[in-house]
Amino acid sequence: MKILVINCGSSSLKYQLIDMKDEKVLAKGLVERIGIEGSILTHKVNGEKYITKQPMEDHRVAIKLVLNALVDKDYGVIKDMSEISAVGHRVVHGGEKYGNSVLIDGNVMKAIEDCAKLAPLHNPPNLIGINACKALMKDTPMVAVFDTAFHQTIPDYAYTYAVPYELYEKYGVRKYGFHGTSHRFVSIEAAKMMGKDIKDLKIITCHLGNGASVCAIDGGKSVDTSMGFTPLAGLCMGTRCGDIDPAVVPFLVKTAGMSIDEVDTMMNKKSGVFGVSGVSSDFRDVEAEAAKGNKRARLALDLYAYKVRTVIGSYIAALNGADCIVFTAGLGENSGSSRKEICSGLSNLGIVLDEERNKAAGVATEISSDNSKVKVFVIPTNEELMIARDTKEIVG
Amino acid sequence: MKILVINCGSSSLKYQLIDMKDEKVLAKGLVERIGIEGSILTHKVNGEKYITKQPMEDHRVAIKLVLNALVDKDYGVIKDMSEISAVGHRVVHGGEKYGNSVLIDGNVMKAIEDCAKLAPLHNPPNLIGINACKALMKDTPMVAVFDTAFHQTIPDYAYTYAVPYELYEKYGVRKYGFHGTSHRFVSIEAAKMMGKDIKDLKIITCHLGNGASVCAIDGGKSVDTSMGFTPLAGLCMGTRCGDIDPAVVPFLVKTAGMSIDEVDTMMNKKSGVFGVSGVSSDFRDVEAEAAKGNKRARLALDLYAYKVRTVIGSYIAALNGADCIVFTAGLGENSGSSRKEICSGLSNLGIVLDEERNKAAGVATEISSDNSKVKVFVIPTNEELMIARDTKEIVG
Repeated sequence: MKILVINCGSSSLKYQLIDMKDEKVLAKGLVERIGIEGSILTHKVNGEKYITKQPMEDHRVAIKLVLNALVDKDYGVIKDMSEISAVGHRVVHGGEKYGNSVLIDGNVMKAIEDCAKLAPLHNPPNLIGINACKALMKDTPMVAVFDTAFHQTIPDYAYTYAVPYELYEKYGVRKYGFHGTSHRFVSIEAAKMMGKDIKDLKIITCHLGNGASVCAIDGGKSVDTSMGFTPLAGLCMGTRCGDIDPAVVPFLVKTAGMSIDEVDTMMNKKSGVFGVSGVSSDFRDVEAEAAKGNKRARLALDLYAYKVRTVIGSYIAALNGADCIVFTAGLGENSGSSRKEICSGLSNLGIVLDEERNKAAGVATEISSDNSKVKVFVIPTNEELMIARDTKEIVG
Repeated sequence: MKILVINCGSSSLKYQLIDMKDEKVLAKGLVERIGIEGSILTHKVNGEKYITKQPMEDHRVAIKLVLNALVDKDYGVIKDMSEISAVGHRVVHGGEKYGNSVLIDGNVMKAIEDCAKLAPLHNPPNLIGINACKALMKDTPMVAVFDTAFHQTIPDYAYTYAVPYELYEKYGVRKYGFHGTSHRFVSIEAAKMMGKDIKDLKIITCHLGNGASVCAIDGGKSVDTSMGFTPLAGLCMGTRCGDIDPAVVPFLVKTAGMSIDEVDTMMNKKSGVFGVSGVSSDFRDVEAEAAKGNKRARLALDLYAYKVRTVIGSYIAALNGADCIVFTAGLGENSGSSRKEICSGLSNLGIVLDEERNKAAGVATEISSDNSKVKVFVIPTNEELMIARDTKEIVG
């Protein structure tokens, strides 16, 4: 069974074709600048890149080109589109309706549309991608895999904000959480590495990419996560502020004379490691500047690590202990220095890194020392594979 | 040495006259409705109440009446105002300028005024109280004891928000923290109860009143606290929401059509335990409703406890362990059921309450079980005594 995984952004599209027999990626690629001048498809097979530049007025044209690439005589990987058994779509927001992945039908399309008010930047392009695929692959079953679904097991006392309850009832204001597919994937892998049933484990997963969140997982179920109503909440990120005193927003509007839109943009695009350091949202740049003695760069790294460290602590309390901690995504997989700073000063909580092992980058491995009561792992995330696995299970 | 402690609100004034020889409260009282029809002074001596109802057009008139009450032939406690060696004033906000209590002079008055933009509801009445006392007690030294001062030892990576650094430089947007006098008082008392030097202790203090905050104290110094730029941040409180996804604010303005003032008022006055339960901001009412099966009341109590529990966890991480946890203020001192719920599920972190001891209310006592690695105490707070002690030290 071969499954096509699609992740549609507003002007981009990522895809992977995975053979579920051995979970091997047959081909993967990226379309950029859809509907914008300079559209480009980068298709990869066995490490080789094939570039196609041609106008793509919409996602349907883009997906047509992707399908053409997959069956291309020279750089294709299948003979015929009928070899694609199903398509798995990443969908950002499933609201409270979906706690699991689901076969897409009219009701699901409607629900994704309904959730667009909660994810106005993400759900509409996700829908466009689904519609484009349906138009081109009429008889192929499609599955929606939601970023929020894994967190639907979070109990009400952890997802409810202490604002008037009517705001939840009327507008759905609550914690939803994101990165669910990634947290779920690495927690399952962590249980395998522990050689234990995930039902018996308390796991804290740290997805540290440009967006970043931590998740508390009890017996395989998410019981809390640091992102919230939107992906702004929780940790300090590349350009997002994470948690701040919410009174800062009215202060900036009323005292600093900013508009609410300016504050919104500032919190999402000009804050985080970028806003504090004034250098970059890329940790490599910030680390380089900090090494040169730039104090704001150092501060940005310190506060980033401190926030992750204290959220880990809060989830150790939520779980009444932890069996393992997992680092994943760009920074989590690759930055030994960040992991070291995050885990520093947690020895009395049973968390001790092994300096040598912590040099690991991009491979699944244990990085805690033998005397660390809590195991610490690096596990590369693979949301596409998780989407493909869900899709296989649902259509299989 | 007798010290008068003054805590001025916008239309109220609390006072205590303390004999520092044995730290005994000679008299205390409350003036309400200053500048409003129905002004009333309630003066207490040895458990007896003396009520004075008469128009009080401003704080100066109110303080004059307080001084009259203190020297009254029948219910006074001193013969002459000259017996008052000094006055200690509670001042909410000292900004970044004051990490300790300070003798009030012109510069201090100016600094308190400068900080009014950070505490527009509190610093102005505090100043009015100081001015009124100075007018009536020209030669008596006055000391300012700031609610924020204790938290000035919080390191930059814990007090800096991940917003553009310019907002800190230009507007002072950072975490300040409040309830500092209370956290300091109970941490000192906790060290005495442990029979140890506070320099060797890691203490987490939970001030749970109508306003509420948790503080991480390392070697006697505050290293983090849950309130922030304003007293809105952190825990769920009586009517305050505490931490929420800051993106909720722009969402409510842009999608729900609320004004920024409405959101501000909502977060401060209509949220918290009151907003979630829809019942009351008073825990006794909410507990009674929950006992009757009211689900929103139950949810409010659960989320309140969960938030305190997870903040305790985050500070155990910040401190790399904890020697003791202290509960204080209205709820913290009196509600065994709240303390029990907060500490439930922390056994693997070495925190175990003793059910019998936890029935304690309003007295300084240990409530942890003998096998609890982390000691847990109830310690009644006494901000007035702390203010008096600081005042004595500075003028003495």
